Amino acid sequence: MKRITNLTIGTIGVCAATLMIFSASRADQPASLAFVKEIPPGYRDWRLISVAHEEDDLHSFAAVLGNDTAIAAYRAGTLPYPDGTIIAALHYRHAVSDENNKIFGKEQSFVAGTPTNIQFMVKDSKKYAATRGWGFGHFNNDGKPGDEKLMQSCFPCHQREKDRDLVFTKYAP
Amino acid sequence: MKRITNLTIGTIGVCAATLMIFSASRADQPASLAFVKEIPPGYRDWRLISVAHEEDDLHSFAAVLGNDTAIAAYRAGTLPYPDGTIIAALHYRHAVSDENNKIFGKEQSFVAGTPTNIQFMVKDSKKYAATRGWGFGHFNNDGKPGDEKLMQSCFPCHQREKDRDLVFTKYAP
Repeated sequence: MKRITNLTIGTIGVCAATLMIFSASRADQPASLAFVKEIPPGYRDWRLISVAHEEDDLHSFAAVLGNDTAIAAYRAGTLPYPDGTIIAALHYRHAVSDENNKIFGKEQSFVAGTPTNIQFMVKDSKKYAATRGWGFGHFNNDGKPGDEKLMQSCFPCHQREKDRDLVFTKYAP
Repeated sequence: MKRITNLTIGTIGVCAATLMIFSASRADQPASLAFVKEIPPGYRDWRLISVAHEEDDLHSFAAVLGNDTAIAAYRAGTLPYPDGTIIAALHYRHAVSDENNKIFGKEQSFVAGTPTNIQFMVKDSKKYAATRGWGFGHFNNDGKPGDEKLMQSCFPCHQREKDRDLVFTKYAP
């Protein structure tokens, strides 16, 4: 995985600097959490769940993909997501396309720019019992995982999405 | 395919209202063109090429997918794209997510809104010889194809992307 910069906003894993606003209380945040330590193999061949875009100071563009278990659960509306579900958010800079704009004759076009990071949610109700069955992973473009402070920010935010089993991204038809 | 509205901007098929600015000369635009008449089956299961976003008055959000031939060609850097390549751009409204913003505490989040249309580029060097081997397709959310005027706008714009065999979208790693 060759990805260069180190931006951190996510749409599935909202483990992001701006989300440190969710400074969890001890009641919310177990002292020791298990995170996803390895990049799930084959994720780039998974099917599309949806797309996402975060602005403010982030300028982040995402494709959200799911493994077969995730796609089946999304399409069937299965909640909670079954063990084995993995959701991946591939993040890029939300970049102006000067090339397209020149052809279009308008300032209108944005494309996936520099890859920044990939975030994962892995469902394993035993392994990640302390975070409602979800393991969170963040890997910078150089393949290195996010630091402890970043990773601690995932669950407190995601747990606010209670009606959809902690998953923000909806399926795009 | 249940898709409701009738917006038209594309990233692969830039067969869009705003692109009528490319009112082609007779030299550019053959009098009778063959278009893609049927929606290619299984496109929603294809793999990701990239994401795209068109603003100005469009507010369009896209996931660009490719069939196996397309993905193989993209990854190998094969140009021109071989016969059998199909590229699909699934378009949605670029929608504010009030739900996410409420959780994030900031006005920052955009998601795939109402589905609008799907556009296809199909490579068949014989069938679509008049348009450099590409057949263009546009299907509104109700499954109906784009009208003649819209379809006539595809090739004159795409042919300006000569260095990448008329394809705008680049592969996102």
